[in-house]
Amino acid sequence: MKNVLIIGCGLLGSSLVRRISKKKIAQKIFIYEKSKSNLAKIKKLKLPGTIIKSLKDGVVNSDLIIFCTPMSEYKKLILKINNFILPRTMITDVGSSKIDSSRIIKKFLKKGIHWTRSHPIAGSEVSGPEHGKDDLFKDKWCVLIKDKKTNLKHLKLLNSFWKKVGSKTVIMNSEKHDKIFSITSHLPHLIAYNLVKSAQDFEKILKFNLIKYSAGGLRDFSRIAASNEIMWRDIFFDNKVNIKKAIDLFIKNLKSFKKDIHKKNNKSILKKLVQTKKVRTKIIKLKQDIDKPDFGRD
Amino acid sequence: MKNVLIIGCGLLGSSLVRRISKKKIAQKIFIYEKSKSNLAKIKKLKLPGTIIKSLKDGVVNSDLIIFCTPMSEYKKLILKINNFILPRTMITDVGSSKIDSSRIIKKFLKKGIHWTRSHPIAGSEVSGPEHGKDDLFKDKWCVLIKDKKTNLKHLKLLNSFWKKVGSKTVIMNSEKHDKIFSITSHLPHLIAYNLVKSAQDFEKILKFNLIKYSAGGLRDFSRIAASNEIMWRDIFFDNKVNIKKAIDLFIKNLKSFKKDIHKKNNKSILKKLVQTKKVRTKIIKLKQDIDKPDFGRD
Repeated sequence: MKNVLIIGCGLLGSSLVRRISKKKIAQKIFIYEKSKSNLAKIKKLKLPGTIIKSLKDGVVNSDLIIFCTPMSEYKKLILKINNFILPRTMITDVGSSKIDSSRIIKKFLKKGIHWTRSHPIAGSEVSGPEHGKDDLFKDKWCVLIKDKKTNLKHLKLLNSFWKKVGSKTVIMNSEKHDKIFSITSHLPHLIAYNLVKSAQDFEKILKFNLIKYSAGGLRDFSRIAASNEIMWRDIFFDNKVNIKKAIDLFIKNLKSFKKDIHKKNNKSILKKLVQTKKVRTKIIKLKQDIDKPDFGRD
Repeated sequence: MKNVLIIGCGLLGSSLVRRISKKKIAQKIFIYEKSKSNLAKIKKLKLPGTIIKSLKDGVVNSDLIIFCTPMSEYKKLILKINNFILPRTMITDVGSSKIDSSRIIKKFLKKGIHWTRSHPIAGSEVSGPEHGKDDLFKDKWCVLIKDKKTNLKHLKLLNSFWKKVGSKTVIMNSEKHDKIFSITSHLPHLIAYNLVKSAQDFEKILKFNLIKYSAGGLRDFSRIAASNEIMWRDIFFDNKVNIKKAIDLFIKNLKSFKKDIHKKNNKSILKKLVQTKKVRTKIIKLKQDIDKPDFGRD
């Protein structure tokens, strides 16, 4: 591959810049970034890419364009690049949900142009180019989307691109992707936000300093609930049908727990508590988390 | 203090044994443990305490007795020690909820005997003496309970005991304690169990391997949901009135999130997502968690 254009150079974008440069995956890396504060950071960090002011320059000179902005930015950017994008250019993104955003892409992207979607399962509660690192994607899953109209040549090239980046790749359709991640990622984030919100509400009601005693469990959720709000608003809105179903099942199960607790139903509650324990072992075995107790905090 | 008796030598009990010995807080440490598998581990680990087979020997020869068993064991043990416990002996425990278990203690403990309650905010998803460590309580909060009938002399001595153990102490009544920890600890655990349970249910419904992709958030909850089931059943049952209130507020807030998502209410959802973010900064500032992104996993 000759040149790559990274649109949006925050945590994910800057990690890609670092990795592409380190592994010499492209000859030249163009960076298009709107935020002045991010631009200042990128310059200070001396990231190995060429900052471009004109989107056109980057688009016409690149073989691959990677959107690393919040999904709500896609439409505006599509309308801009439509004026000069060439059919041979590959486009992808790192967005965390696919059905609704694919509708936007289909509706607004110029006919004959292909956008093949990616979702690297990597991120953090921190944002911005200063937190990026070249091994962010290493050994992580990257889901590639194959729908009816996917350009198979681009899919193949992208698959090889993400492997060079260090990810393990898997191909599935948008429907399956959005169902899976509504459970393994979107619901957990929503729940974490909701738990922290509830703790804040209780703090007001009780007039106690609760946060001081958050080491008993709340602190873990606060990490996830510190994630970027624009990105997560976009995901919640984009995948709302699946997330709604996930919330409904979650509430149904929570009410069942509440009933067990109210009735002190020993057998029923122990069955639940023992069953959920097994998942941790599975997650560690699948190398989805480290095996140190308490995340090895101490 | 001359001698201490630790009843129940799992994660917390064995950590106390290690710390008391290391800091020479007592002359002699007696260990009373029922589980054969734990006993074998304690011997193999060569923990610095004397294993006793007769509870009486430990009780009559100790100045301080610390219950480190699940709360559901208290009644049975109280009925045993009633036969030989002396009024000068201090009793405490490490139980995570106080109102209901205090009723059991009040109802069954022999008149004239004082049990002053403690709750060190320390633990982990792993159980058993092999996971204990001498610094488990270091710089952690330990809540001491002061109710109407609390023996103030014992309270003072216990306060000094926990400080020697390395904890920061705070005194409050059972009501306040159980309210605070229903939010900062009990609800988060219940939510984590419920999230993992919901993911398991979805896995069955969808027939997809979800767990494989748990690095997007679910993995964090699985850690907490791997905690000891007997201990947590006891806590949920013991503090059921406050936990019920916490669940109700949690569901109310979750429904409000669901509504925001359904209606794509930008202003309302962003307000929530931004507000919750502040808690993380507060938690880090209060040294309730480490400040490394992603818990410093990588």
